[in-house]
Amino acid sequence: MTSEVSSSALVNGKSTRFLDIADRGLQYGDGIFTTLSVQEGVAIFLDRHLKRLQADALRLNIPFPGVEILTEEVQRIGHMNSSCVLKIMLTRGLGGRGYLPPKQSQGTRIISSHPKPDYPKSIRESGVKARFCDIRLGLNPHLAGIKHLNRLEQVLARAEWDDEGIGEGLMLDHEGFLVEGVMSNLFLVNSGMLRTPLLERCGVAGVMRGLVLESAVFLGLAVEQARILPEEAYDADEIFLTNSVIGIWPVSLLDGKAYPVGSITRLLTRRIDEMVAREHQS
Amino acid sequence: MTSEVSSSALVNGKSTRFLDIADRGLQYGDGIFTTLSVQEGVAIFLDRHLKRLQADALRLNIPFPGVEILTEEVQRIGHMNSSCVLKIMLTRGLGGRGYLPPKQSQGTRIISSHPKPDYPKSIRESGVKARFCDIRLGLNPHLAGIKHLNRLEQVLARAEWDDEGIGEGLMLDHEGFLVEGVMSNLFLVNSGMLRTPLLERCGVAGVMRGLVLESAVFLGLAVEQARILPEEAYDADEIFLTNSVIGIWPVSLLDGKAYPVGSITRLLTRRIDEMVAREHQS
Repeated sequence: MTSEVSSSALVNGKSTRFLDIADRGLQYGDGIFTTLSVQEGVAIFLDRHLKRLQADALRLNIPFPGVEILTEEVQRIGHMNSSCVLKIMLTRGLGGRGYLPPKQSQGTRIISSHPKPDYPKSIRESGVKARFCDIRLGLNPHLAGIKHLNRLEQVLARAEWDDEGIGEGLMLDHEGFLVEGVMSNLFLVNSGMLRTPLLERCGVAGVMRGLVLESAVFLGLAVEQARILPEEAYDADEIFLTNSVIGIWPVSLLDGKAYPVGSITRLLTRRIDEMVAREHQS
Repeated sequence: MTSEVSSSALVNGKSTRFLDIADRGLQYGDGIFTTLSVQEGVAIFLDRHLKRLQADALRLNIPFPGVEILTEEVQRIGHMNSSCVLKIMLTRGLGGRGYLPPKQSQGTRIISSHPKPDYPKSIRESGVKARFCDIRLGLNPHLAGIKHLNRLEQVLARAEWDDEGIGEGLMLDHEGFLVEGVMSNLFLVNSGMLRTPLLERCGVAGVMRGLVLESAVFLGLAVEQARILPEEAYDADEIFLTNSVIGIWPVSLLDGKAYPVGSITRLLTRRIDEMVAREHQS
């Protein structure tokens, strides 16, 4: 069996690309993950990614193997691939057929490296085109914010367009509020205030989203997490997207309307760049 | 690696218990499944299970390998395990990191056998205790009815109780309507009419549910698929649950209220038993 994906991988610390089909990660999507960038051998913001994994694991009662073992394995994979995207997945592990989680589940950890996507370098400077997706996100407060393995809504949303000129699709929730991009979090700037959708009923609270919110507070910007309607995106002065692989992407065009790469987007980009540079020093 | 689950399995026709971690079934829950009963070497209602898989695959644009190859592989597994539960899973197969489905995905098929669960024999005669779950089902018409691999809501719901005397939990949708059991579909009898929740916004349209609806029409019963409130379950004359492994389970007690095993439940049970017997003859 060949694969277009992982260059190298560890499953429970063993160098292998194969998983038992009885793993609940496959059977039910019963697991969580996080995706980060490795640059010159440094796993950027690893501590925050591990904290987020730990918090998500706690919410779903999935075993967390500990920061030390994950850090050690990330470094093993990072040594082999000094520039890559790294995905850390934790599942509830093996379990009997049926939804009931086993009383003492061991959990499975999978760390895999992937080639960096070849996004055009111009995006960071001049922005990306975005569209609205038709498929909407179902509401479930018990799962909201968690980066779990139930991602069919994102798969269907991403399948809605194949125009390579469009970099991201924005998703609304079942009630019509803006939530996020298919693979990213969403920020608007309205009259100097930085705004991002509340993720209390659906959506993924990304590590980069958290860093941008913290940076905005640090920089003294007014910040709001709120229920935001699509019309408010049309009225925004600036729009940008975030995730740990892309960093910050300004949106230059959304459903035909043009947006400038604004001053707050640039300010936050510089701040995040500084934090990334500091990761290389520490 | 050991497993408590599958006795034997085929992955794309090969006898193995292992799957590439790059499979989108694991990465995103990007797949579907069906579960059926093998009795004396006969895969009960296999044709209907395959039709359902095919319909679900079409909706998600997942490759369907064809009825012939699946039938042949089911029989291979069934020969080795003449009494078992059989699970057929189809995923979108290997794909690059990222939600975008590959243009030409090969798909992965996994057929695995599992021990029959040891439910008490008395349940079929005297019924089962049920409860209401706290966690609710998010609404998504694009996924409604499909037995897909995104099953975290069911995992969390099933984790709500560990009283072995309770056989099933009933789930409401985000708006408070009754949908189904964690692992079963739900039927009520109100004043002689057979009623089951509409599954146009969430839920899994089980093969046994379809058989019961057809049987009811065949038997001349009044049938309704509707939005049903939990209060209407309290007022029901009979309640029962269905899936392809349990068949029909009368509900004897729901949140403290007792229900008889009523005449319509018995009538439909006999009819399904006859259809199962016919499967052995054909």
